[in-house]
Amino acid sequence: MEMDLNAQEKKAGFFQRLQDFPSKLKDDVTKRVKNVQKFAKDDPRRIIHSMKVGVALTLVSLLYYVRPLYISFGVTGMWAILTVVVVFEFTVGGTLSKGLNRGFATLIAGALGVGAVHLARFFGHQGEPIVLGILVFSLGAAATFSRFFPRIKQRYDYGALIFILTFSFVAISGYRTDEILIMAYQRLSTILIGGTICILVSIFICPVWAGEDLHKMIANNINKLAKYLEGFEGEYFQPEKISKETSSCVREYKSILTSKSTEDSLANLARWEPGHGRFRLRHPWKKYLKIAGLVRQCAVHLEILNGYVLSNDKAPQEFESKIQEPITTMSREVGEALKAIAKSIKTMRNDSACVNAHIDNSKKAIKNLKIALKSSYPETYKDLLEIIPGVTMASILIEVVNCVEKIYEAVEEFSGLAHFKETLDSKLSAEIGQHQLLHRGCVKPVLDGDNEKEDNSSCHVLITVHDEGYLPTATAKNVLGAEKTRVDIV
Amino acid sequence: MEMDLNAQEKKAGFFQRLQDFPSKLKDDVTKRVKNVQKFAKDDPRRIIHSMKVGVALTLVSLLYYVRPLYISFGVTGMWAILTVVVVFEFTVGGTLSKGLNRGFATLIAGALGVGAVHLARFFGHQGEPIVLGILVFSLGAAATFSRFFPRIKQRYDYGALIFILTFSFVAISGYRTDEILIMAYQRLSTILIGGTICILVSIFICPVWAGEDLHKMIANNINKLAKYLEGFEGEYFQPEKISKETSSCVREYKSILTSKSTEDSLANLARWEPGHGRFRLRHPWKKYLKIAGLVRQCAVHLEILNGYVLSNDKAPQEFESKIQEPITTMSREVGEALKAIAKSIKTMRNDSACVNAHIDNSKKAIKNLKIALKSSYPETYKDLLEIIPGVTMASILIEVVNCVEKIYEAVEEFSGLAHFKETLDSKLSAEIGQHQLLHRGCVKPVLDGDNEKEDNSSCHVLITVHDEGYLPTATAKNVLGAEKTRVDIV
Repeated sequence: MEMDLNAQEKKAGFFQRLQDFPSKLKDDVTKRVKNVQKFAKDDPRRIIHSMKVGVALTLVSLLYYVRPLYISFGVTGMWAILTVVVVFEFTVGGTLSKGLNRGFATLIAGALGVGAVHLARFFGHQGEPIVLGILVFSLGAAATFSRFFPRIKQRYDYGALIFILTFSFVAISGYRTDEILIMAYQRLSTILIGGTICILVSIFICPVWAGEDLHKMIANNINKLAKYLEGFEGEYFQPEKISKETSSCVREYKSILTSKSTEDSLANLARWEPGHGRFRLRHPWKKYLKIAGLVRQCAVHLEILNGYVLSNDKAPQEFESKIQEPITTMSREVGEALKAIAKSIKTMRNDSACVNAHIDNSKKAIKNLKIALKSSYPETYKDLLEIIPGVTMASILIEVVNCVEKIYEAVEEFSGLAHFKETLDSKLSAEIGQHQLLHRGCVKPVLDGDNEKEDNSSCHVLITVHDEGYLPTATAKNVLGAEKTRVDIV
Repeated sequence: MEMDLNAQEKKAGFFQRLQDFPSKLKDDVTKRVKNVQKFAKDDPRRIIHSMKVGVALTLVSLLYYVRPLYISFGVTGMWAILTVVVVFEFTVGGTLSKGLNRGFATLIAGALGVGAVHLARFFGHQGEPIVLGILVFSLGAAATFSRFFPRIKQRYDYGALIFILTFSFVAISGYRTDEILIMAYQRLSTILIGGTICILVSIFICPVWAGEDLHKMIANNINKLAKYLEGFEGEYFQPEKISKETSSCVREYKSILTSKSTEDSLANLARWEPGHGRFRLRHPWKKYLKIAGLVRQCAVHLEILNGYVLSNDKAPQEFESKIQEPITTMSREVGEALKAIAKSIKTMRNDSACVNAHIDNSKKAIKNLKIALKSSYPETYKDLLEIIPGVTMASILIEVVNCVEKIYEAVEEFSGLAHFKETLDSKLSAEIGQHQLLHRGCVKPVLDGDNEKEDNSSCHVLITVHDEGYLPTATAKNVLGAEKTRVDIV
């Protein structure tokens, strides 16, 4: 009886599931479709790239569809299809690198292959396959070995692969066909057609430049550091007020810790690209890697700092409140400096005045911090152990300021090589500098929301004059000459 | 007259250079040859791999050289050559992944391509290229888009590429040939032949397993951390005694900071590999990445620590000498613990006793350090600022101990999943544990030089008994039962 009930239950469950199936399937499909839509929206260039591949394939298939073309190329047109599929990369640099590698490697290997076949024919019908075999073995092995060398691997890996492929192919086929020259010529010409289609579509339809991606990536990474440092005060001193969302957004810097390989490959591809937009042909791509290294070093410091933010083991309230003000100023100012650096990279305009002012401010805050530390000891607390977490945190933050200074120096050097423009702000500050204002106050840009959206550098200037009565309003207004500018004397 | 002299000088210089040219060329060539030899010696598997590619190419060229084979395959034998060149990778996992991707993608895309051609023929000779064009465009674009999804990119990127290739190829050729089924069959069979040759050569001639590389890499990375920590005392307290060579060797840990992409790709390839040697089919490859992440976290701490080692801004001598002893013990013991962990991974034998003892010792040293810090303050120094570098360094080192504990926990969890064996040491310690020796002393392995060479775990045991008279000599000798064992009572 129980068995029967059990079976009935199972049956009912099965029907239930059967009934639910369509709705579950629908939910699942909707979810997946939404995922794909979101993925495409995150970077619409992915959709465009896919379309571009479709266009290139359609173009190359004309070699088969259009009668006169088919008569001249025949089935070797497939090499063109193959070339399009394997050469077309997301970035222009990738496509150019693969296309040029493929073209030149085919040319060289084809010529060598034809030579090898002619050489082998001297050894008679018996000796021919042996000589060819030895040649294919040795050149194949040598080219494979060359692919291990970092320099070759980085730039000519694909070329070495195609070299082995074409040489083996021509040399081995040469044993069975006499039309080897025609074959080599056909292979080369169809590869050239496929490669040219790829390169043209890649460059002229919504191009994705590896160089530009690298440029933006470095600027964004610097912004990520800035975000963390600006949120640092809240995270450390008022963790209860921070929502989880803000918290995860603030920890975006973590991606920098492992972004080296992406940066390296983008820099490598960027060197294949012709001049485009703001980037000239010999743009100093390698310098980006230097800056990226320093940015990563800074991220390493933030990672340690973050350990102290998340830790429950903090210094006593009394001590913390003493260092809170200088720490807050330090992290905020150094964050602002990073933001200004990121903006100057994004807009390719020098903005030393902004950055210098913020770095100076954070250095002043370091001094204040040291005074606070000195004054609170050893009178207030008898136990050094209690305040170690606070002291360590402060010490790492000081290192962060040093890191940011190094980043700034590297960006300064880079800005000269990359021909950054001078900003209005710099001109302003130069003029103001004559009045030695900078030694008395600070120039602080008020950024409107996201830097991403305001690449036109409409940086408002907020001038704080601490101890002197000089009024720079008129000068500033004259130089900037725009209603947008807001110059306040605080 | 002067002109004449100048011209004469130039001429003489030219002849001089011409005379020097052969010797310079010789020097240059010798240098390059030596470089290549060194490169090959560094990892002789590179030479072997190159030879293997040569062998696979020679085998596949038999399709052309042997008459009966050529009669059955004809020129489509070139697909086999192509497959060998592009599928043969350095590791077995790489070859398997590419081979299987290529095989299955060709099968599926070939079938779809044949279907597409039959479908298009319904639309008459005029409509056929249009329908085919639309199909090639849309499937090509969709497959290209799918390659952006991280999951597909990681495991099936090559498959998607070959899918586009084969589908376009079959669908487009289908317009011009009626023997499309034969063509698809020939392409599939030659690719299978090429792929099989690659996989067989890759597995049966000196295989390079991605899994084993990953395993060794993680263990070596842990050893790199250990090396730095063991050299830390000298680097920090007696920097003048350290030679440049030792110094660079000690900083090997830096490579860990950027090794994530290599680890990820090795783990990904390892999952394609069949069981081999000590690794079963479902070896927990993903767990390596967890350990690697913790190891990297530890390396991040060492990077910060290294900043304090290199800095000239150190705490006063008097303070440093107070903390020197506990710091030395801490870094040495935690380095030993890491060495023991690395060894237990390399030999795949559990050695909790060794590791636990070292971690316990380093924790005791932390306590001593805290006592030293507490006792020295605030009596000795009035200025907190002076000792900040020393305090920060100590604080980071304490974090390192925490990191190492986390690494150890992860390795412990992993050792269960990966079926590590119990070592003699563990048995010994279990027996000794009954006498509660571990609570009073420490078990410390004396490693003979490089861990690499002594994978047979002939770990000597040095037992230090601090405050009790219990003599474990007999017990230890009984358990280990070997002359190799040296048991000292210090």
